[in-house]
Amino acid sequence: MKILIVGGNGTIGTPVSRQLAKKHEVIVAGRNSGDITVDMTDSQSIQAMFESVGKVDAIVCIAGEAKWAAFEEMTEEDFYLGLKNKLMGQVNLVRLGYKYLNDNGSFTLSTGILADHPVELTTSAAMVNGGIHSFVKAACLELKRGIRINVVASGVVEDAAEKYEAYFPGHNPIPMWKVVNGYVKSVLGKGTGEIIRMYDNC
Amino acid sequence: MKILIVGGNGTIGTPVSRQLAKKHEVIVAGRNSGDITVDMTDSQSIQAMFESVGKVDAIVCIAGEAKWAAFEEMTEEDFYLGLKNKLMGQVNLVRLGYKYLNDNGSFTLSTGILADHPVELTTSAAMVNGGIHSFVKAACLELKRGIRINVVASGVVEDAAEKYEAYFPGHNPIPMWKVVNGYVKSVLGKGTGEIIRMYDNC
Repeated sequence: MKILIVGGNGTIGTPVSRQLAKKHEVIVAGRNSGDITVDMTDSQSIQAMFESVGKVDAIVCIAGEAKWAAFEEMTEEDFYLGLKNKLMGQVNLVRLGYKYLNDNGSFTLSTGILADHPVELTTSAAMVNGGIHSFVKAACLELKRGIRINVVASGVVEDAAEKYEAYFPGHNPIPMWKVVNGYVKSVLGKGTGEIIRMYDNC
Repeated sequence: MKILIVGGNGTIGTPVSRQLAKKHEVIVAGRNSGDITVDMTDSQSIQAMFESVGKVDAIVCIAGEAKWAAFEEMTEEDFYLGLKNKLMGQVNLVRLGYKYLNDNGSFTLSTGILADHPVELTTSAAMVNGGIHSFVKAACLELKRGIRINVVASGVVEDAAEKYEAYFPGHNPIPMWKVVNGYVKSVLGKGTGEIIRMYDNC
């Protein structure tokens, strides 16, 4: 299987790429590094990436940003940062990547626990994540040629728990191997329209 | 109570306005009609509306559009129609309306069943609705002065069931009085951060 992983060199992307590369051909795309560079806020850059990479069996996105700030300080432009980057970046990846996916291929997008369990400062980040969840549920109804689409919503991963614990009071960190399994399940499993919630609130 | 209802003259807005006007002062804002006009895609127009209306106890939005089309035909601009209108229109209404709400006032936004149960042609509409749901859950954590925020997610209302039944196969129409009650619950109740799902899937 030939797998394109956008953001495949980030905190979560690196172990996901490593796991999938054991048995598959992995191409890592990144903003500044990787096998190929891509600017997720620019659909022309996304298109150029696909033209360079060609047909693949799975497209995974583990990239996307949104501004964290107090709601009272968020400007309209601040909200559009997340809409243009993490939201429309991923929508454009699906829109433009569709014809570069082989039959029975898959999209795997990324969100996070904030869609369901937001914390302070995340009106934009939560909104973007919630939008992607509903997008995936709607898009799976229309994709043809056996193409699937899922999204992995991860909680705070153990590797970054210390850095983020003040922002996520009482959140149980999730082991990285479980998050990696979320992506493996989406790419190698058969499910579609799934929000793969890799977090532990119990 | 002084209540501003944006879209208060639409299919759902009209009975909501009529119900709330029985015991409260209602100001209806609309794109082309009502007590005051507003363009929800333009934050300057929203700001001008608030400057004209002044302080209120409740801000209700029953307005917002997104493009319905086959996913394969949706352009990037098509997605931005919904983002600028129904999504950021409502976010800007909260952002700018915050200081025009009296203490213990409330925001009530509107989405629909598509966030949870999308149908064909609704990748954009579902996405916008899902985004608003998570936005409301995040915003309620930060609003001060006792200000609340909820969203009413309505199913296909009986009044419009015939027009939409082909798009919503097997959906049970919901009586308008129940949808109206969703708005009444948000405005006159005490809940916050609630997604008031006014639909019936049983």
